[in-house]
Amino acid sequence: MKKKIRVIQYGIGPIGASIVRLMRQKNSLEIVGAIDTDAKKVGRDLGEVVGASDAPWGVLVSADAASVLAKPADVVVHSTSSYLTSVMDQLLACLGAGLCIVSTCEELAYPFRKHPQLSKTLDEAAKEEGVALLGTGVNPGFVMDKLPLTLSAVSQWVDWVSAVRIVDASKRRLPLQKKIGAGMTPDEFRAQVAAGVIKHHGLPESIAMVADGLGFSLDDISETIEPMIAEEVIKTEFLEVEPGQVAGVHQVGRGTAAGQEKIFMELKMYVGAKNPADTVVLNGDPNLTLTIPGGTHGDVATAAVVVNAIPSILAANAGLRTSRDLPLSFFPGNAVG
Amino acid sequence: MKKKIRVIQYGIGPIGASIVRLMRQKNSLEIVGAIDTDAKKVGRDLGEVVGASDAPWGVLVSADAASVLAKPADVVVHSTSSYLTSVMDQLLACLGAGLCIVSTCEELAYPFRKHPQLSKTLDEAAKEEGVALLGTGVNPGFVMDKLPLTLSAVSQWVDWVSAVRIVDASKRRLPLQKKIGAGMTPDEFRAQVAAGVIKHHGLPESIAMVADGLGFSLDDISETIEPMIAEEVIKTEFLEVEPGQVAGVHQVGRGTAAGQEKIFMELKMYVGAKNPADTVVLNGDPNLTLTIPGGTHGDVATAAVVVNAIPSILAANAGLRTSRDLPLSFFPGNAVG
Repeated sequence: MKKKIRVIQYGIGPIGASIVRLMRQKNSLEIVGAIDTDAKKVGRDLGEVVGASDAPWGVLVSADAASVLAKPADVVVHSTSSYLTSVMDQLLACLGAGLCIVSTCEELAYPFRKHPQLSKTLDEAAKEEGVALLGTGVNPGFVMDKLPLTLSAVSQWVDWVSAVRIVDASKRRLPLQKKIGAGMTPDEFRAQVAAGVIKHHGLPESIAMVADGLGFSLDDISETIEPMIAEEVIKTEFLEVEPGQVAGVHQVGRGTAAGQEKIFMELKMYVGAKNPADTVVLNGDPNLTLTIPGGTHGDVATAAVVVNAIPSILAANAGLRTSRDLPLSFFPGNAVG
Repeated sequence: MKKKIRVIQYGIGPIGASIVRLMRQKNSLEIVGAIDTDAKKVGRDLGEVVGASDAPWGVLVSADAASVLAKPADVVVHSTSSYLTSVMDQLLACLGAGLCIVSTCEELAYPFRKHPQLSKTLDEAAKEEGVALLGTGVNPGFVMDKLPLTLSAVSQWVDWVSAVRIVDASKRRLPLQKKIGAGMTPDEFRAQVAAGVIKHHGLPESIAMVADGLGFSLDDISETIEPMIAEEVIKTEFLEVEPGQVAGVHQVGRGTAAGQEKIFMELKMYVGAKNPADTVVLNGDPNLTLTIPGGTHGDVATAAVVVNAIPSILAANAGLRTSRDLPLSFFPGNAVG
């Protein structure tokens, strides 16, 4: 029998829990440890914490990262924060234990431009231990970077790229609906943006990854965050948005070279979104458009892309990798049932 | 200055010529040799043979493969035949010279099922020399295999896959229009199919690649070839097709497991095609559809995907690789101008 891949889950928020439930379905993965500092989770069975019907699993959630990371394991799935500065110590501890990492940390998806020194530190630490780490997810990590880059494999040349993602947040979790400002006044929204609370992370990372992949020498990457304003009453399972109130976020990222726009990325994530879809356009030879009608579902797909990346990161050359470097596809993992 | 990648072009048919013209645009590539056995090309300047406006290039086409392959080089771009058995000697000679290969040979795109022994021979020969080889193209190599597999990176599970490619051959080369039977009677078409003349190669290869990537254990891969019949007069630059005559090919490939269809691939390539497009569907969680309206142009995109694969194959682990294993994207190659 082939040896199972031993995984430690680091962070059991909504996304971490979704990842854990998916990993449990793969016979070739074995969850050997779980780390979280939330007092409501520590000491409890991981299966129970993530609401699994087959709980208990016999794996307890621990707040003592060092002792969990000391267990025999192959890879850490890490899901605690969007900010690289906040997770450096966690990542270095994992690498120091000789473990590969797949992380949902958005800033890790392509950290070279914003955090060149931290990138170097992580790359060196990983190489020293002969392991690899990857930040990934749907966005950044797939829809706005891996997908346009993969499509560009059939391009003789590329002049301009756009990736537009329209997400209907109506069916998403309440925390997500609140996170995008649904139900706020435009003033409240702008205050939350100014305070750094409302923001989807990843557009600059995706722009930098695509630019480097396509050989665009960008002078500047800029980003704006505006509210999407409801024009009519929008009701979700959790809340109601009045006309004039905020329905969600509208973020635009631009990469420019010599004053010219080379990369355009737009994310509209709001309740009541019309025609949700992911659309990638490459202007060049040939001109190419790729559409995923309905779009790539955020929570389901994020958990998927993280779990599917596990075999790729285990097979990767040591160091700090990105989804640009790795072949990514579904990981069958001898699915249960 | 970074050292240029030295390339030998093996085969200068229409696709080979298109590849050569594209390679010439990349400053980081240097074409150091060219092999073809066509008496009309041998001894002539490569730039003139491929109709380049900046000819002559100072590289002569030679029929003596051994002496060209003996030159200092890094990679061979190979484009001579669709059949693996026909090109084994050529490929082994390239590997024996210590050169990586990117080939348009359709059967090389995923040869393990149809030619297990030849696959083993190539893999071993490549590993012995520490080089890697790849068969690729738009189809097989991208639209019906790499693209569905890449999309599956966001899948929690996949139950059924389809890839449908509708190509309008009206604007394509005359040899291609003839190759798909345009203007024949249905009887002539069927005779040509029976003789093995009319056939697009690659559906079984794409099906096998996708099946292995997704963990489907197929019992059977089947393929049918039927004519597309013109319903009205279709005029192209080169020929005219009457109603009732053949407009092109309609191929369907199916992969089944336990009697159930798991993979469906359909190629309609005909003059006057309505709504040309490439469409990939993954049924599973989530259900995903991806469309490239207008489709991926065959000749432009084939040359592109081959040239874009050069850096990936040079960086790959030694052995027989497929587009499933490699990250593929546009190769800027310091494009000229």
